[in-house]
Amino acid sequence: MATIKAAILGFGTVGQGIYHIVNEKREDLKKSLGLDLEISAVLVNNVGKERIATPGVLVTDNFEDIINIPGLQVVFEAIVNEEPAYNYLCRAIDKGCHVVTANKVMFSKYSIPLHERAKSRGVFIGYEATTAGGVPVIKTLKNLLQVNSVRRIQGILNGTSNYILTQMRQDECQFGDSLKEAQDLGYAEADPFNDVSGQDAFRKLMILSALAFKKQPNWNDVRVVGIDEISLEDVRKAKEEGLRYRHVAEIEQDENGELYASVGPQLVGPDHPLYSIEGVNNAVALDTNYIGTLTLVGPGAGMYPTASVMVEDYAEIIGKRAGFFITI
Amino acid sequence: MATIKAAILGFGTVGQGIYHIVNEKREDLKKSLGLDLEISAVLVNNVGKERIATPGVLVTDNFEDIINIPGLQVVFEAIVNEEPAYNYLCRAIDKGCHVVTANKVMFSKYSIPLHERAKSRGVFIGYEATTAGGVPVIKTLKNLLQVNSVRRIQGILNGTSNYILTQMRQDECQFGDSLKEAQDLGYAEADPFNDVSGQDAFRKLMILSALAFKKQPNWNDVRVVGIDEISLEDVRKAKEEGLRYRHVAEIEQDENGELYASVGPQLVGPDHPLYSIEGVNNAVALDTNYIGTLTLVGPGAGMYPTASVMVEDYAEIIGKRAGFFITI
Repeated sequence: MATIKAAILGFGTVGQGIYHIVNEKREDLKKSLGLDLEISAVLVNNVGKERIATPGVLVTDNFEDIINIPGLQVVFEAIVNEEPAYNYLCRAIDKGCHVVTANKVMFSKYSIPLHERAKSRGVFIGYEATTAGGVPVIKTLKNLLQVNSVRRIQGILNGTSNYILTQMRQDECQFGDSLKEAQDLGYAEADPFNDVSGQDAFRKLMILSALAFKKQPNWNDVRVVGIDEISLEDVRKAKEEGLRYRHVAEIEQDENGELYASVGPQLVGPDHPLYSIEGVNNAVALDTNYIGTLTLVGPGAGMYPTASVMVEDYAEIIGKRAGFFITI
Repeated sequence: MATIKAAILGFGTVGQGIYHIVNEKREDLKKSLGLDLEISAVLVNNVGKERIATPGVLVTDNFEDIINIPGLQVVFEAIVNEEPAYNYLCRAIDKGCHVVTANKVMFSKYSIPLHERAKSRGVFIGYEATTAGGVPVIKTLKNLLQVNSVRRIQGILNGTSNYILTQMRQDECQFGDSLKEAQDLGYAEADPFNDVSGQDAFRKLMILSALAFKKQPNWNDVRVVGIDEISLEDVRKAKEEGLRYRHVAEIEQDENGELYASVGPQLVGPDHPLYSIEGVNNAVALDTNYIGTLTLVGPGAGMYPTASVMVEDYAEIIGKRAGFFITI
């Protein structure tokens, strides 16, 4: 049986999750795909740092060591920020590797050139993990778009913001206290700016836009508001009226093809599909012409949800090449 | 460009929906798949009945006319009941046709022999439309199962029952009045037995079981209870306690691989993923080992949702054969 050699770029929570899942599911993947998947190398920031044991795996802080591995075929990328991730992925694609990324900051900006590059090289890009964590909104959209057109997308795309809003309502606590709790529980970063400012949700919305509408609005035209200006008084008042604050990222296409996007807090009532989405969950409601509204809900982040959809991307890519058949 | 010849078996709501969508999306499908799709024939019960115009399409009540069409490659099946649908699909597969079915009664019983037959003939079976209408639970499960295992599935799989329960709570009306309203609105059949007895949800649950667990429980061991014994008093009492009746189909696998399934009304609170599913919507919550709980919500029936996922099945099948690439 042939072996597929893969590397993981970035060995934080998500990178380690990929490593665990590939090892746990190695025999199953062999059986279903007819190919063995081996993690040959991981790219880290600091080789000296103590980390989980990875026997037989090259651990390096030098990307050149990885890109020069003979026969490397798949690169899983779980780094943050645009660079050097974009440069690494370009080089991996040029070498003929399939790439699977979780990097929303990079991918929101470079999805179009990366796809063009991959197409010309005959390789695939998996990016399910960039948007809504374990919720398979990218695959679902790709399938829908074979037949349906999408008019509007509305989503809760940042689990940290949703967790804070949920806590403020349920426990009647201040924004700062909810944020601290989210940080203590590992839901929010030490620097929570990207999450609470709406920037993280904005980047994910742009990825959905590129897929659903084949373009993005001008980024400067999109009003992005965070949750940091919502007071406990606002939340209490909404609660009394039977409403809830949700941090909603939405984009809509009008009849002329123009896109209108916004990211910010909204008050929603019990009939709204996002009303019942609590805690760190993400949700995406897709308004389509034939199916109507389809809503997907699930964990928006976390080691295993995110890593799991990345390994699914790998399986999908292999399936595209080999043809696949699931017996039942 | 090559043309794929297809036939539609059964020309009721769903069959006509397929015909409309294939015609509306013909140019788009050509572009994305590189193949033209032509509906060559439809199988009807009564040739004399007045129906929508289908220029250039053979309209026949004789399956032999269809199976003998030279070069027929795809059969869409939207008939009810096990026979003659099963026989027709066996013959279509034997002839080398891909089949796409919406027939849950037939498929819940014959999914295993049909898949074996298709595998030996090198063709594919699409069955997204058998379960939860426009909600893509089959594709989502297939993808998940590449990496995840499923522990439990809970769903609202019958839109009619959910509509009736929703109306009883919102309008405080009796079961019989809600049923009549559902019938007037076209949500319930003149003979509502399959819907309100739980049998329809049971069949869909068995299809999910075959996919998620590669087997079904003994049908006689599954307790199936409908909604017809829920009184307005029951609903009112639940409402006062902040609870809602949901007609839940669920199946769970224990550590020894044993399956436990049941279909019947349950009282659920606001934290339950099915609490907020109202009206004719369906929902399926999938408990998986890596991702956690993923919930899909959308219209459980209807001409366009159901027909749309059948045409998506066609696109997926063609994609499997040809390899496919979506540019963004």
